[in-house]
Formats: sequence, C-alpha cells, structure tokens
Amino acid sequence: MTYEQLFKNICKQKSFLCVGLDSDIKKLPPHLLEEEEDPVFAFNKAIIDATAPYCVAYKPNLAFYECNGLQGWASYERTISYLRKYWPNHFIIADAKRGDIGNTSQMYARSFYEEQQVDALTVAPYMGEDSVTPFLGYEGKWVILLALTSNKGSLDFQLTKDADGNALFEKILATSLRWGNKENMMYVVGATQGSLFKEVRRIVPEHFLLVPGVGAQGGSLEDVCRYGMNEHCGLIVNSSRGIIFADKSACFAEAAAAKAREMQQEMEKQLIENRLL
Amino acid sequence: MTYEQLFKNICKQKSFLCVGLDSDIKKLPPHLLEEEEDPVFAFNKAIIDATAPYCVAYKPNLAFYECNGLQGWASYERTISYLRKYWPNHFIIADAKRGDIGNTSQMYARSFYEEQQVDALTVAPYMGEDSVTPFLGYEGKWVILLALTSNKGSLDFQLTKDADGNALFEKILATSLRWGNKENMMYVVGATQGSLFKEVRRIVPEHFLLVPGVGAQGGSLEDVCRYGMNEHCGLIVNSSRGIIFADKSACFAEAAAAKAREMQQEMEKQLIENRLL
Repeated sequence: MTYEQLFKNICKQKSFLCVGLDSDIKKLPPHLLEEEEDPVFAFNKAIIDATAPYCVAYKPNLAFYECNGLQGWASYERTISYLRKYWPNHFIIADAKRGDIGNTSQMYARSFYEEQQVDALTVAPYMGEDSVTPFLGYEGKWVILLALTSNKGSLDFQLTKDADGNALFEKILATSLRWGNKENMMYVVGATQGSLFKEVRRIVPEHFLLVPGVGAQGGSLEDVCRYGMNEHCGLIVNSSRGIIFADKSACFAEAAAAKAREMQQEMEKQLIENRLL
Repeated sequence: MTYEQLFKNICKQKSFLCVGLDSDIKKLPPHLLEEEEDPVFAFNKAIIDATAPYCVAYKPNLAFYECNGLQGWASYERTISYLRKYWPNHFIIADAKRGDIGNTSQMYARSFYEEQQVDALTVAPYMGEDSVTPFLGYEGKWVILLALTSNKGSLDFQLTKDADGNALFEKILATSLRWGNKENMMYVVGATQGSLFKEVRRIVPEHFLLVPGVGAQGGSLEDVCRYGMNEHCGLIVNSSRGIIFADKSACFAEAAAAKAREMQQEMEKQLIENRLL
C-alpha cells in the first residue's frame, strides 16, 4: 500500500484506528474454546468483521500466536489470509519487532513480505543499518522502526542524550532518514510520550507514526493529535486490549465494535478539527 | 542449566563452541530436498549428530524457520525436541532477538521457556527493563541480551557516547546488572569487536558472553579469548555458515564435523593456555 492510498483509506473510513489482535488464548471468551477448532482464528474473524468499518489497519502481535506453537502459527496465517481476502483495503502490520544481521533480516523480510504478504513489519533499531535495510527493498511494503515506545522501560535507553544533546531516539530518527523515506518507513511513538511528539515531528514531519499506548496503557488521543497529526494525518493509532477484550460474553464482537466505533468517532472529530475531512 | 553446569560441560567437551543452525532451506544439500519429507529437520539431525562431540551448544536462528511458515515452525520444533531427547546436556539458544512491552514479553517467555523448553533466548535491549525482566523469572533459563553485535550496523548506535563518555552498549551492560545476574543473563558481543571486549569485561567480568562473528564474519578466536575469557571460560563462541554449509554433497555432515572438530581443537588449546583444563 502506498502513502497516498493509506491517506485515502483514512479519509474514507474517517478513522486512523488500528485494531491490535493481541489474541491471548487465555483471555478469549470461554465459549469459543469449547466450540471452535481454532478458537483464536474464530475470535479474530469475528473481531475483524465487527470492527472493520471503524478502522484502517490490523496489527497481530506475533507473541500471542507463537506461544501456541504450530497451532498458533496456523491461527496467525489464517488471520492474515482472511484479511487479505475479505478486507483487502485494510493495512496489515505484523508486530514482531524483528531485526538481525543482514542475511538474517533478509530471511525475515522474505517471510513477512513474500510468504505472508503483510504490509508492514515492526523492526527494532539496535543493530543499525544493515539490520533494517533488507526490509526496505519491497515495493509498497513498510518498515515500522521502534523510536519511542510506550512502556516504562522506554526511559532506560531511548532518552539517553549524547554529547551533542540529542536523545537516542532522535539519533535513530535522523539516521534512519538516510535508509528510507516516508513511502517505506514509519516509526513507533508511544501515546504515553506526550509532548515528545513535537521533537519527533521536528525530525520526521511527514512520516506516518504508529502510536500504541492509547487505552489500557493510558495515553491520550487528543494529545497525540495535537502534537503528532500532519496534513496527511500521519498517524495510525493502535488499541488492542481496550477493544478486543471489551467483553467476554457471546456478545464480545458487538462490544468490540462499540469500542472501535467510539474511537472512530473521536478520530473523525480530530480529522475534522484538523481540516482533513 | 546453571552457570556451574555450563562450565562443567565446557571442561568435559574441551570446547565452548556453539553450532548455529541457520538452516536456510535454499542452501541445503540438494539430495535432502528430493528425498526427505522435512529436509530442514533431516539436515539439522545429521548436523547435530555429527557435531555434538565437538560443541556445547546449538543455536537455531528463528528467521530461517519462520520463512517456511507452518512447515518451518514444525522443523524448528522437531529440532528442539530431538536435541532435548538425544543431547540433553547441550545448551539450546533460540536466537530470536525478541523484546516487547511487559505483557507481550511474558508471552514470548512462556513460548520459549515453557512450551519449547529451550535454555536461552536472545533479547533486544532497546525497550528497556520491563521488556527484559519477564524473561528472567525462570529457574535455569537465560536471557542473552544484545550488547555489541558483530555486524557493520553495530557502529550506528551501539557505540554512541553519552554526556559522561559511556557508550550505549556500556550503559546497557551496566543497567542490566540491576535486572539479572551471571546465573540468568549473558550478553551478545561480536567477535569482530576486538579490543572492545576489554571494556565489556570491565563491566561484566564474570558473565558468559555469546560471541557470534567468528568465521564467515571475520572475527578471530584468539583475540576473543585474549580479551574475553575468564576463569569459568565465560565464552560461548558461535559459528553457523562456516560449519553447517562446509559442503553440500552427500558428505555434508562429515564436513561439518571436521570443521567443528577443528574449532574444538583450537578451543581446547585456548582452554589449556588459560589453565582451565
């Protein structure tokens, strides 16, 4: 998917919501575990069909699939195939936080972009250029580089200033501009980082940002939009647990839809206020 | 496996070699692809049986399995089960470079330590404390944190100095000492980093280091031992391509054994010179 197509989808859906498919088998509605052969896929399918009108992207986090071994991997592949077939305009992010030496990153790229055909992959920056660039050679595919994460541990290293006063995340943003561009790179910036969005936007004014941390982790959508929105929206805001586990009864999908719709409406308001609709 | 057990195995095997199972299906001996139902597992099994006398550890890199989808995941699981059953004293490292927010890292920990029962997992440090500590609560299991990697991109961020003159990798080493200890943490330090091993040993004199980059990547075993060996050896030196793809004929396993034996003999010499044997 191109930068332009993504922006068009946002305008069409009046939403820049990404639904995080952190589908922990231990948290699924109990009836699915009894009735379904692949309860994780059955759950995802119901969540996707219920929330698709209110979002532009889905983000399965691989951890929640890998922990079920072979069966988990099958649930993950079924989910991607289902999205590709029935919701082809939704952007698919494999949240895997990969990154390794060049020849190994190349294998991951082949896996995620060629075999699974997801649109984007989250990548960790610690190993530098040759761990990231193998992901950049695929047309219409994206690297989403960790810049400023939403968790408490982001304080440990990401804000460390170098001798010139630049924080590590700023150095990563600036350096990565030499590797890719706004058509093939985005950055993870946590909603919990508040006014640091201004620093991010100073370095990457046009790029899309993938923003986790609204909802269960406590970030504010309003703040994110105030500091992070640009003239192509430039934001994909993720919510996982707050949407998919809104309810555990037989009505779990309707409850998820209601939560997603609530976020979509807040987002529509923000898009209008910023004159993008 | 405990620190003491690992050291005992090193003395018994007269080796601190780890064989990296980067079993790229596109590089396997062609006859395996024709004859075997699961050629990757058949390859691994033959390599393991041939090299086990000369090494103390195996390190499958997940990228080379994930890229084959469901079948790749099955090859990986079969390999781990085979090692657990037939070579129970060999240390198994899942080279996956994981790391995510706390609840997600917990899922990865469950996956690697409980389901797959590997001994150790490589973890990326960028997301800080709460992305690493969920991996530390398992007795006899290890986190191997990326500190100073063997690739060219290690120069991009890992050596960046803060206002006090400490490089990022030094800050990561020092900070992580508050999270774990020599019984549950190791560090990745690339063989290509030469005299920087001295800086590493200044901060973590007793910890084991996992050292990639000897062989195909150009690092020297002698230098690694000169600067990195401690009184419990403190080194696990990995070689992947140099051993497993030494030959592509029907004799691939014998060729791998010969390469592994060659490294074992160099290592035995180093262990004797350092009075550990």
